[in-house]
Amino acid sequence: MGKKIITISREYGSGGRQVGLTVAKKLGMEFYDKELIDAAAKEIGFPTEMIADREQRLTNSLLYNFAMGTLYGIAYPREPKVSELPLTEQIYQAQKKAIEEAAKRGSCIFVGRCADYILKSRPDVLRVFIYADRDIRKRRAIEEYGEIEEYIDEFMYQTDKRRRIHYENYTNQKWGSRENYDLMLNSGDLGLDKCVELLCEAVK
Amino acid sequence: MGKKIITISREYGSGGRQVGLTVAKKLGMEFYDKELIDAAAKEIGFPTEMIADREQRLTNSLLYNFAMGTLYGIAYPREPKVSELPLTEQIYQAQKKAIEEAAKRGSCIFVGRCADYILKSRPDVLRVFIYADRDIRKRRAIEEYGEIEEYIDEFMYQTDKRRRIHYENYTNQKWGSRENYDLMLNSGDLGLDKCVELLCEAVK
Repeated sequence: MGKKIITISREYGSGGRQVGLTVAKKLGMEFYDKELIDAAAKEIGFPTEMIADREQRLTNSLLYNFAMGTLYGIAYPREPKVSELPLTEQIYQAQKKAIEEAAKRGSCIFVGRCADYILKSRPDVLRVFIYADRDIRKRRAIEEYGEIEEYIDEFMYQTDKRRRIHYENYTNQKWGSRENYDLMLNSGDLGLDKCVELLCEAVK
Repeated sequence: MGKKIITISREYGSGGRQVGLTVAKKLGMEFYDKELIDAAAKEIGFPTEMIADREQRLTNSLLYNFAMGTLYGIAYPREPKVSELPLTEQIYQAQKKAIEEAAKRGSCIFVGRCADYILKSRPDVLRVFIYADRDIRKRRAIEEYGEIEEYIDEFMYQTDKRRRIHYENYTNQKWGSRENYDLMLNSGDLGLDKCVELLCEAVK
């Protein structure tokens, strides 16, 4: 069956967002990444900055609580930081709604935000994961995104950890594990142009 | 850089061999799977049947020794079955040589046999992994390969376990884990025809 929606999950520095954007332009598909936060913000009535801030804090809070083993355990009520959870759940629900409605409107590409999981029941979704070797991602982060070499290892590690925890928290699926995707592309070896061609071919 | 060699690793029942064979025919590439055993057999002077038999027994023996924790431990000299190892290592070395020489001769596709690992240092190799959901693989095994429904769960499990252990034993890499591949295709969702098209596009 033809695919009219592409969801892209990606490792930091793999160029996955860039691939998605290029494919969207080439095929005339709508493209969503941060816009989803805006859509979600409008939905639940918070300013965008506040959502971004809350998300960041939730991740830290989640990490802390995972590490302490207190998130789902009996210590839960004793951890005041987890009081943020209901709001963050609201944010996720708003993002989910935004993704579902955009998907209903027509052909589009989503980067991140658990879109593969949210749209799982639709047969017209191509679920893509884009990754690359560590050194290649590091080089792209420094050269293309202007990140500072001294901090890049830690920054890459934290960014992917945040993405993984966010994904696994909301989906109960393993981030980057093949069973959750239809197509997995090593952008380091294939190159971004080839990734674009393969995605175009895949939805043709 | 252009790819003139494709290596395919695959889950049992995913149709990965069929995809490789079709691509080879379409693009006029040589195709290798069991022929490699023959090549290896000629190389070290054993009849093919004996190699196949030894391989099977090695896998069983390896499984046993992994399970008993005796393979690399101090119990090693006390396990007479492991006396087969040196011969099996010879078989692997002969297969390795056969793969390397076939790759030198020209454009080709290898299915299984750790070819991705053996040819790792060549930049013109596209390393592919083909997989599918359990139910889809099961159906193909019964309908296409004529396997018996009653035994198929166990057979699938044992076949993939054997492939995984063989791969991980010789490569020290994780079978089916994205870092070892350039392209991973879910043949269940994409369909075999689309997998063929994507491989052709990938090496173009």
